[in-house]
Amino acid sequence: MPQFTVIFQPMGRSADVPAQVSILEAAGAAELALHSPCGGRGRCGKCAVRVVSGAPEPTPADARVFSEAELVDGWRLACQTLVTADMTVDVPASALIVSHRIEVNGVGREILVEPNVVKTALRLPPPTPDDARDDLTRIMDALDGDVRPPASVRALRDLPSLLRRSDFHVTAVIAGRTLTDVEPGDTAEAAYGIAIDIGTTTVVVYLCHLPTGEVVSISSELNPQAQYGEDVISRLQLAITGAEGLARLHGSITQAIDKLIGQAVEQAGVSRDAVYEVTVVGNTCMSHLLLGLDPVGLVALPFVPAFKGAQTVPAFDLGIRIHPDGAVYVVPSIGGYVGADTVGVILASELDQARGLQVAVDIGTNGEIVVAQDGELWACSTAAGPAFEGARISRGMRAAAGAIDRVSLDGDVNCHVLGDVAPIGICGSGLVDAVAELVRVGVVDESGRLRRQEDVNGVPEKVRRQIVENEGGLEFVLASAEESGSGRPISITARDIREGQLAKGAIYAGVDLVLRMLGRRPEEVERLLLAGAFGNYIRRESAMAIGLVPSLPADRIVSIGNAAGLGARLVLCSVSLRRRGEEIARRVHHVELSEQEDFYDRFADAMALRPLPRPE
Amino acid sequence: MPQFTVIFQPMGRSADVPAQVSILEAAGAAELALHSPCGGRGRCGKCAVRVVSGAPEPTPADARVFSEAELVDGWRLACQTLVTADMTVDVPASALIVSHRIEVNGVGREILVEPNVVKTALRLPPPTPDDARDDLTRIMDALDGDVRPPASVRALRDLPSLLRRSDFHVTAVIAGRTLTDVEPGDTAEAAYGIAIDIGTTTVVVYLCHLPTGEVVSISSELNPQAQYGEDVISRLQLAITGAEGLARLHGSITQAIDKLIGQAVEQAGVSRDAVYEVTVVGNTCMSHLLLGLDPVGLVALPFVPAFKGAQTVPAFDLGIRIHPDGAVYVVPSIGGYVGADTVGVILASELDQARGLQVAVDIGTNGEIVVAQDGELWACSTAAGPAFEGARISRGMRAAAGAIDRVSLDGDVNCHVLGDVAPIGICGSGLVDAVAELVRVGVVDESGRLRRQEDVNGVPEKVRRQIVENEGGLEFVLASAEESGSGRPISITARDIREGQLAKGAIYAGVDLVLRMLGRRPEEVERLLLAGAFGNYIRRESAMAIGLVPSLPADRIVSIGNAAGLGARLVLCSVSLRRRGEEIARRVHHVELSEQEDFYDRFADAMALRPLPRPE
Repeated sequence: MPQFTVIFQPMGRSADVPAQVSILEAAGAAELALHSPCGGRGRCGKCAVRVVSGAPEPTPADARVFSEAELVDGWRLACQTLVTADMTVDVPASALIVSHRIEVNGVGREILVEPNVVKTALRLPPPTPDDARDDLTRIMDALDGDVRPPASVRALRDLPSLLRRSDFHVTAVIAGRTLTDVEPGDTAEAAYGIAIDIGTTTVVVYLCHLPTGEVVSISSELNPQAQYGEDVISRLQLAITGAEGLARLHGSITQAIDKLIGQAVEQAGVSRDAVYEVTVVGNTCMSHLLLGLDPVGLVALPFVPAFKGAQTVPAFDLGIRIHPDGAVYVVPSIGGYVGADTVGVILASELDQARGLQVAVDIGTNGEIVVAQDGELWACSTAAGPAFEGARISRGMRAAAGAIDRVSLDGDVNCHVLGDVAPIGICGSGLVDAVAELVRVGVVDESGRLRRQEDVNGVPEKVRRQIVENEGGLEFVLASAEESGSGRPISITARDIREGQLAKGAIYAGVDLVLRMLGRRPEEVERLLLAGAFGNYIRRESAMAIGLVPSLPADRIVSIGNAAGLGARLVLCSVSLRRRGEEIARRVHHVELSEQEDFYDRFADAMALRPLPRPE
Repeated sequence: MPQFTVIFQPMGRSADVPAQVSILEAAGAAELALHSPCGGRGRCGKCAVRVVSGAPEPTPADARVFSEAELVDGWRLACQTLVTADMTVDVPASALIVSHRIEVNGVGREILVEPNVVKTALRLPPPTPDDARDDLTRIMDALDGDVRPPASVRALRDLPSLLRRSDFHVTAVIAGRTLTDVEPGDTAEAAYGIAIDIGTTTVVVYLCHLPTGEVVSISSELNPQAQYGEDVISRLQLAITGAEGLARLHGSITQAIDKLIGQAVEQAGVSRDAVYEVTVVGNTCMSHLLLGLDPVGLVALPFVPAFKGAQTVPAFDLGIRIHPDGAVYVVPSIGGYVGADTVGVILASELDQARGLQVAVDIGTNGEIVVAQDGELWACSTAAGPAFEGARISRGMRAAAGAIDRVSLDGDVNCHVLGDVAPIGICGSGLVDAVAELVRVGVVDESGRLRRQEDVNGVPEKVRRQIVENEGGLEFVLASAEESGSGRPISITARDIREGQLAKGAIYAGVDLVLRMLGRRPEEVERLLLAGAFGNYIRRESAMAIGLVPSLPADRIVSIGNAAGLGARLVLCSVSLRRRGEEIARRVHHVELSEQEDFYDRFADAMALRPLPRPE
């Protein structure tokens, strides 16, 4: 049997194949995967290639799909064209299946990009008297067998004129195996999605290019619900007082998201219509308020959410302007106070597949804790409060320019300030550092009491004299009015220390209680993951020194950044991870800390400003 | 083993059962089927009964579902309560499964009522610390395993407060295996649907009670699109001239439907919110215009619709006000000019299951013909025009009060008028009768020519002198200006006879051509079904005399009324028939008459005003 050589350009790959093999098969032999959603039946035109030399006569399928000029130019359907001579074939990018991978920070892994929304360019044969299939069937036949027709009539409305206007060369938008839209020409690359992390305090929006999984732009702002209450509880109270309160909280977050999406697409030069899907993580209350759901069940024991499973709703219904038939996918929650953001942390950190004993702590306005033991998962939420995000701290602020993020009291007060500016406040990691240093030098004792100047011994004078007393009580001055960018001194008050102590006690007690439930000890933890912006800036030594996290060898503690937001990106760019997130939400054991009998004892112990655990 | 007797009231049925059998099982033994959507797991409360005597202690499931007073009163879950003594049990209507049947006119058959939308009353156990399932899961657990959660966020919004307000006694609305809404209390009986027949000329709306399939009220009016063109072609032309024309046609039909639904629900004293679904039949063009779809493919050969398959779209998107998450189900079409209305005719007449050779003719603005041979189906459309609906006939009108519907020329001109009023026009059956009589007595010849008075012989003088000539040409006066209710004479003009002749020729030629394709002859037809309002009024003898339908023994011709509209009702009240309609649409062979080579010869032959077929 004669063998022919087929060379594929621009890759420069080639294959020797027997006669009568299709170009599609020859490409496979050359280890090039070409698109063929119609299964090689000559129906979708997706495998269109240009045969530069050795082109055989066009087949009837070619004649239906290509113009006369294109046929002369060598355009053929790879699935229909048989190799009958040596050939050189130009493969356009649109015909080639390419795998992309996302690099995940912190935990250093890659995922296969396989988004829920896929766009496929099609070249359809126009109708003839022998082929009077209706327009929709013509498109469905060109797609994979398990794609469903559109749920919305909108996509069908212009279909007939659109097909004819574009010579039946169109791009199908498929979202979750449903045909969502048909666009004229080849628009397969113009496919975007939005991943959102709704924090109680901050909202972050990531615009992602779906075919590659790349983040194209990011926008963020403070959660505007904060004007109605800085923590979850106060917003819940407003939401259940009546429809108006709920509508206000719902409206403010959806408007903020719509605005942030506008900023992100403008920054990237992308049309809102080219954004087909939004994925969202947030705590359970945030998920309810985003959807405008009455959160009455979350207010009192037994803390019953309206829903826990994943929700997919039309973006239009939430007033979020993306593609008119675009959807918002809300990642499932684990329980009343352990939300989709925790599912995101688990997905991003792969704790569900971790071996041994591992712990993740996500410190935001609440502190969520996940304990993984050989693939089994427990999660709880602690009312840590927003101290580490700067709230309730007299000069507290987020980790932004002007924030003191590191403090050392070695002979003098040395503060590191974020950005190239004068200090204007202190962020969470700065607070932890300051408290750790104050305890180390003896200005603050283990019980959290700030000592008066006269009660302090063996402390450098430059440090000791920073202890001042005014009408509010004792405080420790980090920067004087002259040094401060705001003209007001930046101090840590006795009350700030108590706030930090309560927050860190709640987190440590949570970790401690869950580990005890499993009969394990904090020092047995093999890896401790710190998630959230706070986790990125914190000094591990300081966190261990004041007993915010268990004392462990430093290499067991890893910062993984905004893992919740990364989780939202992962479910946007991978349907497998989306399904895995749904499975995780179902199988995590939800621990209600307040129902643990030794909760208050543990919490009291955990308040001590010293390395923990205490020796038993 | 001891046997106990359980008596069920108010039915008076009883069963003897061994101890430890549940009341649910005992009811089964007494041939009473009780609802148990949760599968007898004590989760849905749907099988609640009152044990009048012999009640055992309440089970934990009873205690969760019933109040203290209800328990004292004997209320128990039939699935959880074991028979431990002789018992008398009151079964409320809500617990009993009842089968209903629809009586189908004309073809005399019954169908089992099994609507797509089902409402189920539930008594759910409220949350406890040991049972902190989220609200949605609590409801889903009470329903059949294959029910899906709501697609719309609306249904979830009020769920938490609604559940608590109604003590967790609610009614689930399930549409097509998706939970669509949850309503407080037991509203299972308030379940309605709308079936619509969109004719080119007339729109008819049927309000149906879903649990029984009964028609509760009917409203109808002329299709307001008629103002833009009386036939399909002129409306298509307007629709493709630009978005505005299409928007006008779409808007006028959806507004008319919304108005007619308003009239139907008002007449029946039903809330629009209690209407959960709309089903629609119409020709392919009407289906496109209803959905606002560009019909450009229907304008020229090969007549390609935008869609043929069934479409389900939110009623809200069409501006049709029913339940906020209600849907409109559009029955599938067969081809460009054979629409969902023909699927309705086939469903109503069961032609898909007929044995032997049967033909259905639906005469409206177009004439659709279905030929069934041993279960295989062929369908075509003939451009009969709206003559038989009264359009294009000088004094034509619909079959309504004042219409001459029967004519006899036995010695004198005798007209029967619909309603107890003076005649104001002539309807389709009157036209057929008049032409048949005019041919019989010799005033009109077989070629359709109206003879002058002086050319007519052997005709009673009272008939002969009704032939008059005026500036418009020859005409035959049925009622003088004095006899007429409008003060104007009612005549049949020479042109009216031509219009009738063209219409009947098109229909007869269509039947003839399809039968010839199958190698069959018209006289072999075993049953001929006449659908449409016209079919109800027509005299079979007259229709055969002028060759509108093949000459057959009279008992082979059956009028089946508005079979298309009945089809819409059937798919509303039976999911099995809905699936069957979808299968029918796929398997009917669509015949394009204009592509048959002897079409024009057959059409010319079929124009003759005499019994057909001609002897070969």
